[in-house]
Amino acid sequence: MKIGFIGTGVMGKSMAHHLQKAGHSLFLYTRTKGKAQELLDNGAVWCPTPAAAARQADVVFTIVGEPQDVEEVYLGAEGILTESSKGQIVVDMTTSQPSLARKIFEKALEKGVDALDAPVSGGDTGAKNGTLAIMVGGNKEAFEKVLPLFQTFGSNIVYQGEAGAGQHTKMSNQIAIATNMIGVCEALLYARKAGLDVDSVLKSISTGAAGSWSLSNLAPRMVKGDFAPGFYVKHFIKDMKIAIEESERMGLELPGLSLAKKMYEELALQGEGESGTQALFKYWN
Amino acid sequence: MKIGFIGTGVMGKSMAHHLQKAGHSLFLYTRTKGKAQELLDNGAVWCPTPAAAARQADVVFTIVGEPQDVEEVYLGAEGILTESSKGQIVVDMTTSQPSLARKIFEKALEKGVDALDAPVSGGDTGAKNGTLAIMVGGNKEAFEKVLPLFQTFGSNIVYQGEAGAGQHTKMSNQIAIATNMIGVCEALLYARKAGLDVDSVLKSISTGAAGSWSLSNLAPRMVKGDFAPGFYVKHFIKDMKIAIEESERMGLELPGLSLAKKMYEELALQGEGESGTQALFKYWN
Repeated sequence: MKIGFIGTGVMGKSMAHHLQKAGHSLFLYTRTKGKAQELLDNGAVWCPTPAAAARQADVVFTIVGEPQDVEEVYLGAEGILTESSKGQIVVDMTTSQPSLARKIFEKALEKGVDALDAPVSGGDTGAKNGTLAIMVGGNKEAFEKVLPLFQTFGSNIVYQGEAGAGQHTKMSNQIAIATNMIGVCEALLYARKAGLDVDSVLKSISTGAAGSWSLSNLAPRMVKGDFAPGFYVKHFIKDMKIAIEESERMGLELPGLSLAKKMYEELALQGEGESGTQALFKYWN
Repeated sequence: MKIGFIGTGVMGKSMAHHLQKAGHSLFLYTRTKGKAQELLDNGAVWCPTPAAAARQADVVFTIVGEPQDVEEVYLGAEGILTESSKGQIVVDMTTSQPSLARKIFEKALEKGVDALDAPVSGGDTGAKNGTLAIMVGGNKEAFEKVLPLFQTFGSNIVYQGEAGAGQHTKMSNQIAIATNMIGVCEALLYARKAGLDVDSVLKSISTGAAGSWSLSNLAPRMVKGDFAPGFYVKHFIKDMKIAIEESERMGLELPGLSLAKKMYEELALQGEGESGTQALFKYWN
């Protein structure tokens, strides 16, 4: 299949690689060409604009940075939808605004193009190993057509409903993570301050009712002082901002999420924006 | 072995039963004799006071309600330590104050008695199935002597250090749970308000970075409107109060824990003290 692929950052690169390995032809655009070199060496075609990458493709995937990048890549002067043609499917995997996903869906529909919002979870290792969770919104028929492509890089692929539902699901995911991160840090801090052996404490509490992915995977890094990014603080703040905007729009007050966002913003002001989210442990320094 | 057992509530009853099944002789005291009937029918000896239950025992277990109950049972006029004799080991499994655990340890030591603090996690099902997590503070030699008894009702049994360390570990456990409960509720609320199919959302988010014991086990109950107690709101508030007192004593500010305590206290004021902790979902009603 001819596939347009836009955005070959840490996540996109691995995903594109899986599609390439499965025998698909890639038409690439990314802001920094150097980041796509390996894919180009393996036969992908370089395109100078998003529109050019979309022109010949049956399906176009995008995974870029901020919502404004998504908007530019789809709706800008050289955006995908300027060159899209009837029957094409476009899939945005950036974590972005549900409202923007709906807007793109509608604009695409005017051209007979189906748009899916399909943000992912599972980080760089999930992308590399092809085990991402993919949360998909849009028309179900389009989802089913793209499913075999999703399966090349994802393992927990769930159709969540109409346009925007993928992004909303990702927001729900980030909300659950956000508040739990505070709890993980506070449990560790308490244990350390009480003079306990933190590794023994984790052995007691990780597998029971206090257990969580973050406690098992990030708490040991906090203890070791390893704050290298699996997932950047600055990106997490972007996600929490979207989640809070959407919550406010729905008249929902989420005190845990608000607290987490406030704490992470203070952390970023302390210069930790480029650290991994486990750096929240430094908030108390 | 001759074992004193004090407190045959939901948890204590199952634990005492495991000890009985393993062939040990039980000397029982509990506030409401009727709750011990099954154990008495199986050959346990009824004792009219904690002191009487302790008199003949090699090891005494206690699992009662509040810290003041622990204090009464150990240090009261008819308390265990009035009748304890050299070489005995006493084990408090109530979730209680680390400072009280140290006080009991010292008072016991004056009599040549070893005291362990050994709170548990895993709820009524863990007690029934003999799979409790047990977090133990006190002298290591005493821990090793009691270990075979712990093994009759526990599976993740970890020695955490000197007297009070078991209670501190349990506090760390409750702190991790407290804040995560807010996140679980908020993620679900967001999903529901956004019009998503909440079961599909849980399918997407439960196994990844947002995953937790509470998300897997309590979120489905919230969705179903099942607020029956696995663990009571009122007991959770007691635990959080202890954790906050201890944190303040150590000069540690835990904003997530403070928020959780405030929310649970409001929930109790709404009449949910006897509900399970997943009733936090009703906070937003």
